[in-house]
Amino acid sequence: MSVTLEQAEKLSEAAKAKAKEIGVAMNIAIVDEGANLVSFHRMDNAWLGSVDISIKKAKTARFFDMNSGEIGKLSQPGGPLYNIEHSNGGLISFPGGVVLKEGDKIVGAIGVSGGSVEQDHEVASAGASAL
Amino acid sequence: MSVTLEQAEKLSEAAKAKAKEIGVAMNIAIVDEGANLVSFHRMDNAWLGSVDISIKKAKTARFFDMNSGEIGKLSQPGGPLYNIEHSNGGLISFPGGVVLKEGDKIVGAIGVSGGSVEQDHEVASAGASAL
Amino acid sequence: MSVTLEQAEKLSEAAKAKAKEIGVAMNIAIVDEGANLVSFHRMDNAWLGSVDISIKKAKTARFFDMNSGEIGKLSQPGGPLYNIEHSNGGLISFPGGVVLKEGDKIVGAIGVSGGSVEQDHEVASAGASAL
Amino acid sequence: MSVTLEQAEKLSEAAKAKAKEIGVAMNIAIVDEGANLVSFHRMDNAWLGSVDISIKKAKTARFFDMNSGEIGKLSQPGGPLYNIEHSNGGLISFPGGVVLKEGDKIVGAIGVSGGSVEQDHEVASAGASAL
Repeated sequence: MSVTLEQAEKLSEAAKAKAKEIGVAMNIAIVDEGANLVSFHRMDNAWLGSVDISIKKAKTARFFDMNSGEIGKLSQPGGPLYNIEHSNGGLISFPGGVVLKEGDKIVGAIGVSGGSVEQDHEVASAGASAL
Repeated sequence: MSVTLEQAEKLSEAAKAKAKEIGVAMNIAIVDEGANLVSFHRMDNAWLGSVDISIKKAKTARFFDMNSGEIGKLSQPGGPLYNIEHSNGGLISFPGGVVLKEGDKIVGAIGVSGGSVEQDHEVASAGASAL
Repeated sequence: MSVTLEQAEKLSEAAKAKAKEIGVAMNIAIVDEGANLVSFHRMDNAWLGSVDISIKKAKTARFFDMNSGEIGKLSQPGGPLYNIEHSNGGLISFPGGVVLKEGDKIVGAIGVSGGSVEQDHEVASAGASAL
Repeated sequence: MSVTLEQAEKLSEAAKAKAKEIGVAMNIAIVDEGANLVSFHRMDNAWLGSVDISIKKAKTARFFDMNSGEIGKLSQPGGPLYNIEHSNGGLISFPGGVVLKEGDKIVGAIGVSGGSVEQDHEVASAGASAL
């Protein structure tokens, strides 16, 4: 069971609505159960560097079945997962990647980048909640 | 002047409608004037390997301001652009990447992958025509 | 629905038995529905360069839902998919990658490398048939 | 003298048994004397991002003939091997990679990823001890 394109578009719309509400142009990526890209949207004037970051955040969340910021807490200097970001062609381990769940089942993940990490996480969570 | 997200979504819808009409699940990518990704959609059950190919087709078309298949004609063994595919992190030089024009101005490109190259080009053209 | 580790091990055993029967040391890789690695086995003295090739063959087969050799028929100079191998971090487009099916559903793929492409395909097919 | 496939499978079984005992789904990779992959197993529902990490842990351990966590102690900011993770296509320098010894001779390494680093190391050690 994996997120469908129709679901991904609904989630992206919800994320985009939250981004507009808080006034930040965002990049919004959604991956499926297999961590493969399903949809991507860059709002007008959103950071170009966040195309890659939003996709990597979504993949990171699905790679480890936890929100991307959780990885970052563990990957600081001296932490147990220090430099885990060198794996998998590059992870993004700060907030903005959120797992997508249907009941207990993880069906994909959403990654958002374009504002502060708090804003990114808020927008990603708004998307994830629309599932 | 560059393709907006609103335009990209309209183009993707047109491409998706054509894909459904011909009965092939497609990956549809749109890049802007700067060859940066604006939107991406993978239809349910479309080839996973075509995520990357559709994005590379769109980039290839905008990189050289011509449809991706034109590059392929020039990159055959003995041809003037032989092995140009090694540049830019990998090009895709067969049909399915189409430039987006407003009047004479190129504002981006659309890349489609998931069927035969003829089908890919047909769906990309349907998207481009919706601009 | 995706191939399980238990299934993958059974398939690898069947492939290995065929490899022994024809007297060639093989690398055997199996990926799941999402094209992610499930299992890998390198028989003693099998080619080292075939570790990567067997994994790429399995991924290639699942990326396009067809045996890897089918891609190679289409990617020759002058062919419709010329140089598709530059996508997805590198494809392998000669025989030895075979899709795994449960009824009509593709649940993964197996990639084999270590002998001639005919031998690779024979061993991969023996594995796939054990599903 | 290098770990054989038969040995690798025995070690993987021992690691898998320990993983089941502690209730964590693991990725288990074994490399030989030449740091080349011999076997890999992903237990059902184990983290997808740990495919690459388990393989990199095994390689890291054999690259430097010490458990992967030892590298991490030396690669912290200000430490003598700061950022060594940038070499060799990416190292993983936290626990879970363990060298394989026959007497005094190093014959390969095992890498495990899927739980906490303590769990990863415990499962890798259980595998290594089965040699």
